[in-house]
Amino acid sequence: MNKITQLFGIKYPIIQGGMIWCSGWELASAVSNAGGLGLIGAGSMYPDILRDHIVKCKKATNNPFGVNLPLLYADIDHHIQIIIEEGVKIVFTSAGNPRKFTPLLKKHGVKVVHVTSNLLFAKKSEEAGVDAVVSEGFEAGGHNGREEITTMCLVPNVVNNISIPLIAAGGIGSGRAMLAALSLGADGVQIGSRFIASKECSAHINFKNKVLTAKEGDTMLSLKDLTAVRLLKNSFYNQVVEAENRGDSIEDLKILLGRGRAKKGMFLGEVEEGELEVGQVSASINEILSVSQIIDEIMIEFNAEKQRISEIKL
Amino acid sequence: MNKITQLFGIKYPIIQGGMIWCSGWELASAVSNAGGLGLIGAGSMYPDILRDHIVKCKKATNNPFGVNLPLLYADIDHHIQIIIEEGVKIVFTSAGNPRKFTPLLKKHGVKVVHVTSNLLFAKKSEEAGVDAVVSEGFEAGGHNGREEITTMCLVPNVVNNISIPLIAAGGIGSGRAMLAALSLGADGVQIGSRFIASKECSAHINFKNKVLTAKEGDTMLSLKDLTAVRLLKNSFYNQVVEAENRGDSIEDLKILLGRGRAKKGMFLGEVEEGELEVGQVSASINEILSVSQIIDEIMIEFNAEKQRISEIKL
Repeated sequence: MNKITQLFGIKYPIIQGGMIWCSGWELASAVSNAGGLGLIGAGSMYPDILRDHIVKCKKATNNPFGVNLPLLYADIDHHIQIIIEEGVKIVFTSAGNPRKFTPLLKKHGVKVVHVTSNLLFAKKSEEAGVDAVVSEGFEAGGHNGREEITTMCLVPNVVNNISIPLIAAGGIGSGRAMLAALSLGADGVQIGSRFIASKECSAHINFKNKVLTAKEGDTMLSLKDLTAVRLLKNSFYNQVVEAENRGDSIEDLKILLGRGRAKKGMFLGEVEEGELEVGQVSASINEILSVSQIIDEIMIEFNAEKQRISEIKL
Repeated sequence: MNKITQLFGIKYPIIQGGMIWCSGWELASAVSNAGGLGLIGAGSMYPDILRDHIVKCKKATNNPFGVNLPLLYADIDHHIQIIIEEGVKIVFTSAGNPRKFTPLLKKHGVKVVHVTSNLLFAKKSEEAGVDAVVSEGFEAGGHNGREEITTMCLVPNVVNNISIPLIAAGGIGSGRAMLAALSLGADGVQIGSRFIASKECSAHINFKNKVLTAKEGDTMLSLKDLTAVRLLKNSFYNQVVEAENRGDSIEDLKILLGRGRAKKGMFLGEVEEGELEVGQVSASINEILSVSQIIDEIMIEFNAEKQRISEIKL
């Protein structure tokens, strides 16, 4: 049995990453209906909006789903309260200390997974009592670690040093990459970027189209002095690089980043002036498909490649 | 049949990366004797020294071996001449245009492989007529690309767009990582850092010990404005970062880098003032072993993990 399918009661060990402005109830329920685990991305939602998405997700699927919760969010207590009230049973936390809410969530029967980008925080997460960790490599889109450790190096190092199940993230958008992640010792995968280019994703079509045309080298880890984030290159990205090269202060960078940059880019489709968060794997994404087509493609490729690999004699 | 074992006439599709100051005849012949492909790293050798290493390697092994040749080396014509005169049959080129020497080398019956860090140059290498490419990810030690593409994202993208055999490099130091690379579609792997911590490697014992104690985040891609290189953090690395933060000119960076920094660090063992080139995978390397032990360990783990993966039912 696979530890991740068992932990969540799902068919495939495929988690859809909870991405701000891209992961509403429609995407999450579609992933859960297709046999993976859908996550509502709470990071871009006011508490009432989050409740609305949870209610709609419960109506749209009978399968398990969860919420991704960045712990640094200002309204975090309110978010937690809604999650408990609405009976959400799976929460992925990120960007904060897993010790803060894990005991409370687990007391209410919630399975907790913490997203980390290094071994140190994976160990701290295990000590905090989480049920599993996501180890997310440097190639992943959005917020990331400063150590720049790639999935290939991060996953085996964490697997060797923790006992709880591990979900690999970063650079995974195909069955081949899923097989590679499981070869490295992961029990499951978290996939973000590939689901941006899905029909059910709430991202603006302009952003989805930018993901389709992205080539290698078109995303870079940026804003390392503020909060490292992998961005797709555009006019906003260029402004960030110029500001950093000028040696602008953290305060000036915060002003440039401003409020609403991410919404502007990913949700409203202002793809030059907005912030676009996507991973390196965007270079291999060329088509908008439905979630069920994406998961079918991944599983067909996974099983075909597994067969190919199992026949290698060395 | 495996395309890489066939191409070179070797037992395992494991290439030992040709690393400056670390890959003399002793390491290369040990790898070839153990069933992999050893490469003499010409980048740190004057022409006469290179000839000496080739002659000694021929005496030390009856198996195929090769030479790694950075094409930007000042004495490159002399190196090429020696390689042809000494009848070397395999050359890995890097850091330069593969069109320049591939036809000449192939005319003399040499198999040519070019090392690249992106799809664009992999395609150019194929057009230049090379027999295979190495696709080297961001996590690799030493010289690297500016696009920062990781092995997980680079390998599948290149595999999908070229027809010649592909060797994956970057982050590979175990059987598990080798299996992941082959899962991504690679035909073989190039391993560098793991062989630094081998008995036969010519690196100074102080450098080998630094590799053993390296933790995640201890290497960083540096000198991106000059020539991107992954360095192990030490006093010299700190000086580089300070110079870059000050906005020092390329000329000043060249003066800081100076001549002999790499020799000082990796060969003479001045591990604070010298340049230390190693990959992120150093965080998972904890023991100096003989080359044959390293290759045995990798192949045992590879086959065990392959068995484990082949039993997954999803």
